[in-house]
Amino acid sequence: MENIDLTNALRKMITGLGTAKKRHAEQCFVAEGTRCVLEIMGHLRCRYLVSTADWYGEWSCRVADVEHLIIVAQGEIARLSQQKSPQPVLAVFYMPHRPERLSELNEGLYLALDCVQDPGNLGTIIRLADWFGITDIICSRDTADAFNPKVVQATMGALARVGVHYVNLAEFLRNVSLPVYGTFLNGENLYESELSTDGIIVMGNEGNGISTEVAEAVTRRILIPPFPDGRQTVESLNVGVATAITVAEFRRRSVNTKRN
Amino acid sequence: MENIDLTNALRKMITGLGTAKKRHAEQCFVAEGTRCVLEIMGHLRCRYLVSTADWYGEWSCRVADVEHLIIVAQGEIARLSQQKSPQPVLAVFYMPHRPERLSELNEGLYLALDCVQDPGNLGTIIRLADWFGITDIICSRDTADAFNPKVVQATMGALARVGVHYVNLAEFLRNVSLPVYGTFLNGENLYESELSTDGIIVMGNEGNGISTEVAEAVTRRILIPPFPDGRQTVESLNVGVATAITVAEFRRRSVNTKRN
Repeated sequence: MENIDLTNALRKMITGLGTAKKRHAEQCFVAEGTRCVLEIMGHLRCRYLVSTADWYGEWSCRVADVEHLIIVAQGEIARLSQQKSPQPVLAVFYMPHRPERLSELNEGLYLALDCVQDPGNLGTIIRLADWFGITDIICSRDTADAFNPKVVQATMGALARVGVHYVNLAEFLRNVSLPVYGTFLNGENLYESELSTDGIIVMGNEGNGISTEVAEAVTRRILIPPFPDGRQTVESLNVGVATAITVAEFRRRSVNTKRN
Repeated sequence: MENIDLTNALRKMITGLGTAKKRHAEQCFVAEGTRCVLEIMGHLRCRYLVSTADWYGEWSCRVADVEHLIIVAQGEIARLSQQKSPQPVLAVFYMPHRPERLSELNEGLYLALDCVQDPGNLGTIIRLADWFGITDIICSRDTADAFNPKVVQATMGALARVGVHYVNLAEFLRNVSLPVYGTFLNGENLYESELSTDGIIVMGNEGNGISTEVAEAVTRRILIPPFPDGRQTVESLNVGVATAITVAEFRRRSVNTKRN
């Protein structure tokens, strides 16, 4: 680890990572705050760790795999930060590369996102995927960018463990051997459906649901029933909430299957 | 319904409803967009309906219980709007008053929120409460305001059906006869716990969970297990996600109980 100064060029590069174009050119992204930075630290290589002297004094024992350390005043971090309340640490990590995992999808449970556009929703989904042991999420190319600062903060560090891949989703799903589940208003009650331990669960766009092309690749249509079933309610659940309920039910069944 | 003009005083009053103080003084709140306005329309009395002539032409058949109609150009709505992409309709509704419901909590399933601070999370929770037939949510006084414009938009109209009450939560829970559930890291596995059909489920603050004082009123501690149980993961789930998984499991059991 090398101690360096914060130059104007470096300042410009780090703030530039707020745009998708720069993130992909540099293959780097920014994480902010103690919890988020420390969760990712050690899982992904850190290009720049920018912190106050106090922060580094307190947390240096947890710092690992860092190329460059930059100690600055809190005011400097605020200038680099995308957060309303900047914390005393911010880090630039190299993006993980895990394309090989996509060719191995013949067992396990995965998520596929068809044009999920809100960064907060995507972050929530990555975080719950981690909680439920889902290692990979396959996204349509028009889904939000997983390395957008708003997504990174909402994942609470889960990006270190969960791989997020961008593909032609309809084509990908047509060629996969696992069962493909999707939630639809005319689907079968989730709690009365047979759910396999392995599979891909497709979640759709916030306003429009699953696109026609992707829907054609869905082999099993399910529905989260309102309570009591059939009563008047909001038209739909938030996509993060619907994903959570569906994944939790798959995992509950899978634990029960192993026990029986 | 009376057709009136948009005066400066009215403009000021409507934009003023962006603050909690003005909302409580007027006992009114703002909802924006076709879906949100029409969901609430008819459930709550509408003080002002502000729309373009085109919008009114298309939707007048769905308009009900409106005191004053104000037809303006789209640019006028944009000046009143709190949204990034203003829609051609915005409405001021009277807040519902349902304090009597609180004295009737001796059966049914309810949510209690202990200092949930993010408006998006509160909106998501109100929306899923509606989906799962939860009629009332009891909040600590430091929980976000349910009539904050960000909350109203995130509820997708569910505020019309779900009552949100602000009380001294610890005191309220100590005096209630229903079982009080809460999620804790040292709680019992949700899927292995006995869950009653009636009860109150307490969800805590985004960063700190349930406060000590409220925790003392919780009679049954539960935990959403990660998968596989015991592996390293993010420290917690988003509060909207955790609420969704917990409520869905209560409702699933309750349907199963009725069947058996």
